[in-house]
Amino acid sequence: MIEIDELWNRIDAAVLPLGAEEIPVFEAIGRQLVAPVPASMDFPGFDHSAMDGYVFAEERPGRCRIVESIAAGESPVHAIHPGEAARILTGAPIPSGTFAVAMQEDCERSDGWVSPKSGVALQMGSHIRRRAEIVRAGQSVMAACEEIPAGAVAMLTACGVEYVRVARRPRLLHVSTGSELLATGEESTQGKIPDSNGPMMAALLAGRGIPLVRHRLMDEAAALAGAAQHFDGDLLLISGGSGRGDHDHTKSALEAGGFTIHSERVNSRPGKPLLFASRGRQLAFGLPGNPLSHWVCYQAFVRRALDRLESKNPPIFVETYCPGWPGPEGDGRQTWTPAVVKIVVGRAESVALPWRHSGDLSPLLGANALLLDSPHPTSQLVRTLLL
Amino acid sequence: MIEIDELWNRIDAAVLPLGAEEIPVFEAIGRQLVAPVPASMDFPGFDHSAMDGYVFAEERPGRCRIVESIAAGESPVHAIHPGEAARILTGAPIPSGTFAVAMQEDCERSDGWVSPKSGVALQMGSHIRRRAEIVRAGQSVMAACEEIPAGAVAMLTACGVEYVRVARRPRLLHVSTGSELLATGEESTQGKIPDSNGPMMAALLAGRGIPLVRHRLMDEAAALAGAAQHFDGDLLLISGGSGRGDHDHTKSALEAGGFTIHSERVNSRPGKPLLFASRGRQLAFGLPGNPLSHWVCYQAFVRRALDRLESKNPPIFVETYCPGWPGPEGDGRQTWTPAVVKIVVGRAESVALPWRHSGDLSPLLGANALLLDSPHPTSQLVRTLLL
Repeated sequence: MIEIDELWNRIDAAVLPLGAEEIPVFEAIGRQLVAPVPASMDFPGFDHSAMDGYVFAEERPGRCRIVESIAAGESPVHAIHPGEAARILTGAPIPSGTFAVAMQEDCERSDGWVSPKSGVALQMGSHIRRRAEIVRAGQSVMAACEEIPAGAVAMLTACGVEYVRVARRPRLLHVSTGSELLATGEESTQGKIPDSNGPMMAALLAGRGIPLVRHRLMDEAAALAGAAQHFDGDLLLISGGSGRGDHDHTKSALEAGGFTIHSERVNSRPGKPLLFASRGRQLAFGLPGNPLSHWVCYQAFVRRALDRLESKNPPIFVETYCPGWPGPEGDGRQTWTPAVVKIVVGRAESVALPWRHSGDLSPLLGANALLLDSPHPTSQLVRTLLL
Repeated sequence: MIEIDELWNRIDAAVLPLGAEEIPVFEAIGRQLVAPVPASMDFPGFDHSAMDGYVFAEERPGRCRIVESIAAGESPVHAIHPGEAARILTGAPIPSGTFAVAMQEDCERSDGWVSPKSGVALQMGSHIRRRAEIVRAGQSVMAACEEIPAGAVAMLTACGVEYVRVARRPRLLHVSTGSELLATGEESTQGKIPDSNGPMMAALLAGRGIPLVRHRLMDEAAALAGAAQHFDGDLLLISGGSGRGDHDHTKSALEAGGFTIHSERVNSRPGKPLLFASRGRQLAFGLPGNPLSHWVCYQAFVRRALDRLESKNPPIFVETYCPGWPGPEGDGRQTWTPAVVKIVVGRAESVALPWRHSGDLSPLLGANALLLDSPHPTSQLVRTLLL
């Protein structure tokens, strides 16, 4: 049996980042950049007005003749000379010869003439947004190894970026084993139960935009070995059969399929009978069939492998305050407890949702974090994995 | 001009939750339950073994004859009597007459006989998980007004729940106005810019699973009024033209389309020229065309309307520590500043990403929160909207 830290090390050592692909910015939310993104064009693309107002050619213009009116999307026809002005709207290009833009509230207009109100002093360049003042064409807008948030779509689009190079999505297969599992639509009978791990994993992975192909197999060693042998994706997840019981065929199936087992027992509660294996660049986890264990193993170990495949940083552990909870009952294994983390007046506070046994799924209804072991007896801080 | 709080009140008053729909559990992640979910069946569905082991009929069995072997998915054929035992695997149903399950590590087996190792005492019901010990058929598994997390899929599936009743998704239309906007694929020319708001909003809404229909219109009052008039969705978003300039037609278009304007200026920086309107149960926002303002208005106001449409709780404000930042420059308006919030040793800390002007989109590249106004001068706590 190995420690949790050691399993993380083995995952980090065995998992190689996948290749990259070029996709439209618009579809790239949450994806990991694998190359810096240079601006395709200056942003802003031209000097333009930040306000609705008038452009003048001098610091102290008198009454000026309005030579044209420039709306957003139009191009100025005239250069502005002393004694002249132009009506200009927000976002419209600045004509050549401009000294400054005055806000319309600061001007007096009559017929075809305009002047700044008395007492209004113009400052050179005021209310003008300069070409490239945010970013110049060719400059990096985002660095490699950043995840693209929705807000970045505006910035990238504004810089003329239409495609970005991101880590490709891993291809996953989830195989639920267990003769006790009902087939979809099969009538419930004594001794049989619905497969809850397949739908749960599909939901977890949908949350990160990864489609999950799912199979269901009876507890037959040959069928499972065939599935392992013919697997052609990036990450194979086998639910159930990872222990050492009479019907636990995952280890032998992975070995028969040419996988090398890197770990077969981890000092983790729940999650002890977790298998981790690889074959070339392909990875496999044999996950406990118990849904609570399955969920914890996904959060604590599978996510780490996925993050690495997608060139992302590993999942973040933080410390949260967990007052009034003594921690899980000890049995020598490191123990995970689902929890709800909230920010309360500047403090990150967690409330443990203890589980009675690994068949108890009720903590999964509300958890947004996993606590590892017990709060520190004096500081009450506990190591917390945010989900 | 109204205060931010007052606009929230008007949004809350005008927005009515949408109807409900029944969808498969598996597709319901992140959706809001509008009715409690009762278990369709007991969970667990039958008494079963928590371990690989042997069942015995007595507290102090001697050497017992193994009458059958029961694997997960099978049904026991025999009742167990004193002097008898059965091999049982994890998840398999308990035969009638069982006193307790003994773990296989605690038993000695030879040929067709088994006995507990000397010194092992059996306790009634040990290693047996009882039918309905987690939830009984008909009992509520989740309450109305809960959002379904991915983990809940396992619990719901285990309780035989296949469909849940959730708030229906709102139907949204986003109309980008502005003669300066390039059409898709149009060559960039002087005075024209790409439309960054449409793609950004599509990305933001995709993040909550809402598809966005997008249109682009020139600054023509009649076209916009037509779009408002014929709008048949739940929420209409108009980008640009919400101010009072010569080319700002949003207010008149909404009015011509039969909408009632509830607010047309809010004491919010950025975001002052934000229109909010409704027509029966249909809603509309006229959003500033400036992308930073557009993004802030989405986070601070549109999300609130969406949450209410979907029967969700309003967006959460928390307090985070923001040491070393004096706050935004004041101009009398309440001011939003994008920020990065992190948990550091139990403290929720924010780092402000100040914006130079509302044309500066760089804060959108990394923000996961919005700060409202300045940190308190002594506590350094600042009101924070988590994104």
